[in-house]
Amino acid sequence: MKKPLILVSNDDGIFSKGIACLVDFVRDLGEVVVIAPTVPQSGMGHAITIHEHIRLDKSDLLPGFEAYECSGTPVDCVKLAKHYVLRDRQPDLVLSGINHGTNSSVSVIYSGTMSAAIEGAMEGIPSIGFSLADYSHDADFEPCRQWVRQVVMAALHSEFPLHTAWNVNFPNPVKSGIIKGVKVCRQAHGRWKEEFIDRKDPQGRDYFWLTGKFLNLDEGEDHDEAALAAGYASLVPCHYDLTHYPTMRAVEIMLEKGNQAM
Amino acid sequence: MKKPLILVSNDDGIFSKGIACLVDFVRDLGEVVVIAPTVPQSGMGHAITIHEHIRLDKSDLLPGFEAYECSGTPVDCVKLAKHYVLRDRQPDLVLSGINHGTNSSVSVIYSGTMSAAIEGAMEGIPSIGFSLADYSHDADFEPCRQWVRQVVMAALHSEFPLHTAWNVNFPNPVKSGIIKGVKVCRQAHGRWKEEFIDRKDPQGRDYFWLTGKFLNLDEGEDHDEAALAAGYASLVPCHYDLTHYPTMRAVEIMLEKGNQAM
Repeated sequence: MKKPLILVSNDDGIFSKGIACLVDFVRDLGEVVVIAPTVPQSGMGHAITIHEHIRLDKSDLLPGFEAYECSGTPVDCVKLAKHYVLRDRQPDLVLSGINHGTNSSVSVIYSGTMSAAIEGAMEGIPSIGFSLADYSHDADFEPCRQWVRQVVMAALHSEFPLHTAWNVNFPNPVKSGIIKGVKVCRQAHGRWKEEFIDRKDPQGRDYFWLTGKFLNLDEGEDHDEAALAAGYASLVPCHYDLTHYPTMRAVEIMLEKGNQAM
Repeated sequence: MKKPLILVSNDDGIFSKGIACLVDFVRDLGEVVVIAPTVPQSGMGHAITIHEHIRLDKSDLLPGFEAYECSGTPVDCVKLAKHYVLRDRQPDLVLSGINHGTNSSVSVIYSGTMSAAIEGAMEGIPSIGFSLADYSHDADFEPCRQWVRQVVMAALHSEFPLHTAWNVNFPNPVKSGIIKGVKVCRQAHGRWKEEFIDRKDPQGRDYFWLTGKFLNLDEGEDHDEAALAAGYASLVPCHYDLTHYPTMRAVEIMLEKGNQAM
């Protein structure tokens, strides 16, 4: 049987520990090709590079694997993989991560890691993003190994729902102890409360750093934040149809009223 | 009655014609404050700036308005507006655009214009992104005036559905003739087929430009692409819960199978 072709990317950069671990965890499950950003691209969301050119170079940071570093965003990496590097070879799976830091709840929207997976889904490729709730450079990804493998096997051995991507988050094992399993759940409702640090440069001109704190605003218990808090890995099946169907009729009525007000 | 506070941003940059027109179209409907990118930020999706500092400076490009230019992304602009410039004053409305170029169908995911609106929705502010299907710098936005005003009046005069944002696209009036009205519709299913232009720099090293062509893969007729093709402006109510609820149970079964395969 032909080995599945597994495309791996991330947003922390090709040099990060998380991508090396991910590649190691799945190396026997398929033919692995890596295309990942040259420099960190955290928080790049679904950005693509259109005002600059893009560089793509072979990398020897992952010995034994066909690997490339790309000057662009995580989504650029997937596009270059699909339409240039792999061309007529359709990947069987796109894996992204393992991200240094959580991408649960609304962080999925800002996440370069998950945007690479969503881009895979848009291309009709089964796609999974993995993230660990530990931002440190030398985070311990080893407790994720068996769960990454279980999720990847699930994706490879069943028909993956077309045009969807899975957002898999692991709790911090130091804080939560052993990972208890994988829970399929919905995205928690929450938001980031921003605080800008305002500083002055040597010329006296203001500059700002974005900092923030996640607020879980969800009172339910069937969401990813709850699963993580209970020591489970969370898996949210994601899609990219942003239409809010429940309000469509209400909006039509609003427009009629707006028309009368003119 | 207190005038509504309207925050305006975009992704083409504060110098663009589209934002000047948008501000002009709504100037009598509220107190307008503008915070928009210093340089073009098209295709930035929901990117935020976390590895660099952010600059924010007063701008005199929009005489008569409180306006700021920001070195960051469209989402940074909304975050700085909400959490720094306006601080305790909650905007009544976030408007983004008018974008030079369409943001219908899946382009909503890549769009900085729509990401600014989605960020507003995340903050619980009624939010609308406007785009015109004309990429030229001197596009004629005048045919959009009455429809922008109708949509904004609708948003201001009714209770706006919480945590949603409207994606409003206008057809190219040169191609479609008069704009026939505003149709509430769903996001069309489609994708961008990429083609990378591969060139060599003077040192003989490859570099790439991302180009693409939109493919409408949707056979329905109740979506934004169909509305635009028929000469209507499209309005898609959007939200940011990416959970794909219909496949949650199927994914649970897939995971059980994956477990057995190990």
